[in-house]
Amino acid sequence: MYIGIDLGGMSIKAGLVDESYKIVATKTAPTDAQRPGDEIAKSMAQLASALAKENGYDIKDIKGIGVGCPGSCNSKTGICAFSANINFNDTHICEIITNETGVPAYLGNDANVAAFGEYKVIGEEMESMLFVTLGTGVGGGIILNGKIYEGFNGVGAEIGHIQVDKNSKNKCGCGRYGCWETEASVSALIRETKKAIKENPDCEMAKAVGGDLQLVNGRTSFEAAKAGDPVAQAVVDAFIRAVGEGVASMINIFQPEVVLIGGAISKEGDYLLNPIRKLCETETYKHNGVHTRIAAAQLGNDAGIIGAALLGE
Amino acid sequence: MYIGIDLGGMSIKAGLVDESYKIVATKTAPTDAQRPGDEIAKSMAQLASALAKENGYDIKDIKGIGVGCPGSCNSKTGICAFSANINFNDTHICEIITNETGVPAYLGNDANVAAFGEYKVIGEEMESMLFVTLGTGVGGGIILNGKIYEGFNGVGAEIGHIQVDKNSKNKCGCGRYGCWETEASVSALIRETKKAIKENPDCEMAKAVGGDLQLVNGRTSFEAAKAGDPVAQAVVDAFIRAVGEGVASMINIFQPEVVLIGGAISKEGDYLLNPIRKLCETETYKHNGVHTRIAAAQLGNDAGIIGAALLGE
Repeated sequence: MYIGIDLGGMSIKAGLVDESYKIVATKTAPTDAQRPGDEIAKSMAQLASALAKENGYDIKDIKGIGVGCPGSCNSKTGICAFSANINFNDTHICEIITNETGVPAYLGNDANVAAFGEYKVIGEEMESMLFVTLGTGVGGGIILNGKIYEGFNGVGAEIGHIQVDKNSKNKCGCGRYGCWETEASVSALIRETKKAIKENPDCEMAKAVGGDLQLVNGRTSFEAAKAGDPVAQAVVDAFIRAVGEGVASMINIFQPEVVLIGGAISKEGDYLLNPIRKLCETETYKHNGVHTRIAAAQLGNDAGIIGAALLGE
Repeated sequence: MYIGIDLGGMSIKAGLVDESYKIVATKTAPTDAQRPGDEIAKSMAQLASALAKENGYDIKDIKGIGVGCPGSCNSKTGICAFSANINFNDTHICEIITNETGVPAYLGNDANVAAFGEYKVIGEEMESMLFVTLGTGVGGGIILNGKIYEGFNGVGAEIGHIQVDKNSKNKCGCGRYGCWETEASVSALIRETKKAIKENPDCEMAKAVGGDLQLVNGRTSFEAAKAGDPVAQAVVDAFIRAVGEGVASMINIFQPEVVLIGGAISKEGDYLLNPIRKLCETETYKHNGVHTRIAAAQLGNDAGIIGAALLGE
């Protein structure tokens, strides 16, 4: 039995994960992100202990406690150097958790850990897999030979921060302009949906939200496009193209066996994936027709807990 | 003693490489690229044998014959599936060379093999290194844990074929628009130099080539910029920015210990590299100030032979 912790700015979510990679119980606590980082690490340890106990396990039955953490994490040292929204500053997360619990602890960046979870549940031997998650940003993780790739300093795989539009006026949170994230995130989709509604106040999308831009979300354009709104269709087409072009670039670099697309929008399934597959068919290098498989991620919000838990496998 | 072969569309260049990674002798033969691929592979074997013999070595003294080959090469099988300018079609290059010589043979893509040569001569243990070569295109290679990264199908590391300008009208040889290669290759530099001269027929660059666009080369804008021509300076600045933005994107993905910039233009040294370093300083993720070192490649045209030879080390 393993424990995986998905640490966010608002809450600490811990899950008890069994040998068949299933979450059998969860427990949540507030992050209270502004307190000292050491205290947050202790809270994670306490939450893990309580989760084990409540479910009839001695903490000594737990083989490992893994943490998926937003920010710059070094898996070798177990230290989080920095996190944008949580008060970590060279915080020795693994050391603190192990001191508190006696259980080996493991650390990884949250997106990387989610990628690892998705990789493990596929259950195939793969040389390489790329996970792309479309949400507020474009995140992801790279799994090579069964291991998370994180670069020599632990902050690699920031795949959302390749520049895809050098003339873009969209400034990214990272400071660059025209990152993949500014063009292919759900935030970008919402931005372009709002823009299209402003420019076409009579379109079906505008009617669907009653003209209230606050009601626009990541599904607005997809739903209206499926209902036949050409304005929405143009927004959707441009969004899917932005995702697909980035995926094609990633394939040209990595030639991974599999690219998994995650985030809530991946529930669109083939409606989203087929145009991406078609684009990649013509815009990537191939070898005797052997090319990357593109599929939807499976685990949804559970990827973080499962991936973190399996760091200790 | 090793033999490395740098195979090009025009010539086969073989080099005898010693244990200290130095080329001690070379020999060249025409590729005659339109004949059957098997014959080209046999010619490589014969050239290697002749090179060894001429220099007083029995072919049995050679530990390995490595080939750096343009196109889709599978290092595991020793097969070249396809090469744009050489008549390979699932050609069993390694098998043929070993059958002809009795020496173990090794195969890699030419850019990957050059990257490997540059990596080996640095002589440091590095977790990761990225080699970017600026020439007719933008090529490169990725070395992870001392090994060439080539993707599951052998055609990875086509780093020049990430899209950096989604609205670009510059069509790439690969079929995409706005690849890094269409913006940051020496071909792109020459294209932009010619364009600037046409638009500014009185500029210093125009005078330097006597108004003859045929005389424009990769040095034209750099030389005029250093002499104070503002038109040339703008061309150089835009070119360096295009190189730097791509390097920053690659760092955000890989966080390699070192990025090496190769190609003839890398002789510009710090004049080229300092602005790239500065751009990457602000546009890449870091961890406690630990960031990628950016340097000029060392081996020039020898990288292919040395890298190929050392595949057999």
